[in-house]
Amino acid sequence: LPHLTASGAAHMVSVSAKPHTPRTAIATGTVRFSNPTPLSLIHSASNKKGDVLSVSRIAGIMAAKHTPSLIPLCHPIALTHVGVTLHVLTSTSPVEEKPMKDFGAIVVESKVQCVGQTGVEMEALTSVVGAALSVVDMCKAVDKGISIGDVRVVLKEGGRSGTWRE
Amino acid sequence: LPHLTASGAAHMVSVSAKPHTPRTAIATGTVRFSNPTPLSLIHSASNKKGDVLSVSRIAGIMAAKHTPSLIPLCHPIALTHVGVTLHVLTSTSPVEEKPMKDFGAIVVESKVQCVGQTGVEMEALTSVVGAALSVVDMCKAVDKGISIGDVRVVLKEGGRSGTWRE
Amino acid sequence: LPHLTASGAAHMVSVSAKPHTPRTAIATGTVRFSNPTPLSLIHSASNKKGDVLSVSRIAGIMAAKHTPSLIPLCHPIALTHVGVTLHVLTSTSPVEEKPMKDFGAIVVESKVQCVGQTGVEMEALTSVVGAALSVVDMCKAVDKGISIGDVRVVLKEGGRSGTWRE
Amino acid sequence: LPHLTASGAAHMVSVSAKPHTPRTAIATGTVRFSNPTPLSLIHSASNKKGDVLSVSRIAGIMAAKHTPSLIPLCHPIALTHVGVTLHVLTSTSPVEEKPMKDFGAIVVESKVQCVGQTGVEMEALTSVVGAALSVVDMCKAVDKGISIGDVRVVLKEGGRSGTWRE
Amino acid sequence: LPHLTASGAAHMVSVSAKPHTPRTAIATGTVRFSNPTPLSLIHSASNKKGDVLSVSRIAGIMAAKHTPSLIPLCHPIALTHVGVTLHVLTSTSPVEEKPMKDFGAIVVESKVQCVGQTGVEMEALTSVVGAALSVVDMCKAVDKGISIGDVRVVLKEGGRSGTWRE
Amino acid sequence: LPHLTASGAAHMVSVSAKPHTPRTAIATGTVRFSNPTPLSLIHSASNKKGDVLSVSRIAGIMAAKHTPSLIPLCHPIALTHVGVTLHVLTSTSPVEEKPMKDFGAIVVESKVQCVGQTGVEMEALTSVVGAALSVVDMCKAVDKGISIGDVRVVLKEGGRSGTWRE
Repeated sequence: LPHLTASGAAHMVSVSAKPHTPRTAIATGTVRFSNPTPLSLIHSASNKKGDVLSVSRIAGIMAAKHTPSLIPLCHPIALTHVGVTLHVLTSTSPVEEKPMKDFGAIVVESKVQCVGQTGVEMEALTSVVGAALSVVDMCKAVDKGISIGDVRVVLKEGGRSGTWRE
Repeated sequence: LPHLTASGAAHMVSVSAKPHTPRTAIATGTVRFSNPTPLSLIHSASNKKGDVLSVSRIAGIMAAKHTPSLIPLCHPIALTHVGVTLHVLTSTSPVEEKPMKDFGAIVVESKVQCVGQTGVEMEALTSVVGAALSVVDMCKAVDKGISIGDVRVVLKEGGRSGTWRE
Repeated sequence: LPHLTASGAAHMVSVSAKPHTPRTAIATGTVRFSNPTPLSLIHSASNKKGDVLSVSRIAGIMAAKHTPSLIPLCHPIALTHVGVTLHVLTSTSPVEEKPMKDFGAIVVESKVQCVGQTGVEMEALTSVVGAALSVVDMCKAVDKGISIGDVRVVLKEGGRSGTWRE
Repeated sequence: LPHLTASGAAHMVSVSAKPHTPRTAIATGTVRFSNPTPLSLIHSASNKKGDVLSVSRIAGIMAAKHTPSLIPLCHPIALTHVGVTLHVLTSTSPVEEKPMKDFGAIVVESKVQCVGQTGVEMEALTSVVGAALSVVDMCKAVDKGISIGDVRVVLKEGGRSGTWRE
Repeated sequence: LPHLTASGAAHMVSVSAKPHTPRTAIATGTVRFSNPTPLSLIHSASNKKGDVLSVSRIAGIMAAKHTPSLIPLCHPIALTHVGVTLHVLTSTSPVEEKPMKDFGAIVVESKVQCVGQTGVEMEALTSVVGAALSVVDMCKAVDKGISIGDVRVVLKEGGRSGTWRE
Repeated sequence: LPHLTASGAAHMVSVSAKPHTPRTAIATGTVRFSNPTPLSLIHSASNKKGDVLSVSRIAGIMAAKHTPSLIPLCHPIALTHVGVTLHVLTSTSPVEEKPMKDFGAIVVESKVQCVGQTGVEMEALTSVVGAALSVVDMCKAVDKGISIGDVRVVLKEGGRSGTWRE
């Protein structure tokens, strides 16, 4: 584990000698509802131009910037792009993780870029969970069984190891 | 959705008139590995008294305190307790979400308390994802397919609505 | 000036002996445009359910929570409510401050509440400027002469001094 | 509005492909008093070497660093300079915005620099409002009608669009 | 060690059941110079009403508010007072810690109060080091051997254990 | 004092024209105990793989990242490495500062690197005090006389002035 020294102590890994290169990461995750109310309210709020998805998109963008405060061993990085997309799924779809009754879901996708000495996977993941937590926050009053799942990196570009795709 | 006004604008819901009562929330989530390397390295680091699980426990505790910075509509709350437990699962267990080859998992459980005017579910969930993201950060170099799932509240106590258990 | 000691040193004034009482503050401020483009783009974005006003409302809510980090001598306060309203003014209105050609404006109004030992005027003002700065951020590419003005408290309720209204 | 995608979603605009160039922005704003007490107390505090203007200068410097936490779509930027100047105006001056009885004002001017991929206008504006809010915080006990106005960028240098001056 | 559970895991100790009581802590610390330049420049800056000591006082006040972000297991606390005093020592004094040539020192004293469920010693200590680090920051260009020492709590009042004095 | 302008106002010194060069700073500091209990408990916690030293190492790493929020005139810097080492001293050693009865000590050493326009001494010092304060936090319940001393830079490399060693 590169985040531990030979003696087992945590450290922020040195990237001092690495070149600045353009880097991209895309992560996704899914908020799954356990009853039909949240999705119905989200639709009617959206129809009235309510802030419901905006709040989560912005939470996801700001979460990416908070990554070095949240993840102890992450480097502070000058991000050059953060974009968050929310896909509202209303029917059975390939993303659900277990054979549960399907009440819809919101799939969050966050894309983060920098030109720097280390990758931005953690920033993309933190952005996804920030957006997802914000959806949960707004819906928890009407869905106590709401959950977040399948949070993972799906694309990583740039740096020595090149492109990786799920 | 209580976080939206009648006109659809997001707001931080008023809890001004609610009494201060003791509140507890417990949330859990699972970091799942896609190959056997992370768990093997975690074990050997733990055996050498390495910081590996400590980092994640502390990340989870600090994440709970960061909740109002991350979740736009959350109230700032004077937390009175945060405890994070990490269960390392080495064999097939009831927590996995899809029929994948099982390379073990770490189940995060966060318990948060306050004496206040609103609940601490979001703080417990944010603590779980903070700890889980920190595990991912340390293991991502050796497991690109690592993922976080099944993040949800399992217990909520206190406040007008009383005790709720998954 | 109560924020200075007898010797002139800044301090965070002691409110230790004051009772916890419900407090409210409302502040307002105005973003003024210097050409017709921003308002026209805001309208078309709003018509397409774009995030434009949502971003500013959320910026205003989060700014209220950032007050103790921004204003050196402010107490950290457990806010119980933050609401931000944006009024889009499209014609000549009583708010403009100087005899300029009128290209419309956005009036921000923030209402903040707590039950505490000190007032929330600074939180309401910080919320207003947070929302206003966010409008400026989004419009500055198409309006270099955009400005923020008339930022002030219009209502203060609670505490020893009772209700004050502009 | 470049901060919105084609579908109207807010994002942090990509500056990944832009070169690092030296950039400067200067913003100004005015704190206006509604009675003679604040200015008189500020003078006597300054005469006693009190911290009154220091607090606001420092608030302005720190606010510039807080910009990415406050303005949702702002990039985190490695600032290379922040300077804040406070001009105490004691008589009628060209800065006042409306025909009010003149009780003096403090004009804040913030200059911010970086060598980066995007401009620092928002950092300069945030610095101005941070300093101005801090003046308001210290004076609000003796002037409930205090206000902030005329906050705007007056100079922008560097980047593709070159120099812009009000 | 109360911050560790029976199994050795760090946690934020539960204070949920403790009553809210008034609490005070005073901490001190010393910045020691290794050559005569800093003190001479501080004096001349102070004589010109320069910001030198103000910066450190304000850094100390703001540091107290940052305590829960810095100290992983500290509770977030609604502080009701922070005061920072800087004593400039120009001659041999009882505070120096080792038989070094005496080039003067600045003794920082921070007093912090709250009405809450846990003490504010860590806030007082963090305030002292925040102010002391700020002195070091300003003087390090002219004194590479500058150091901070003797940082400790000297008074603790309130709570179950009552008053403790060094 | 470079942090003050000619008129005595604090500013964040301009480093806009300086080149990006690799920089390193190492700082140290000592936590000294006033009774034998803390060291004995730390040993037994470490033997049980408790988190006690991990918490402080991580606090030190995160504190380095918090430097620009804590030290008003510090530049935000993209750190490329932070490593914190804790040496537990159990017997008389050359680090103690005054002729006190020796109950052991923990010496913190923090190494920080960046490739940037200004040095990282303040980041190294802030890391040391962050780790040291965290030790104090965990031990203060069993040692009210615990103190932090001898906090200073011991190595500085890179930049125009080259290598400096204590």
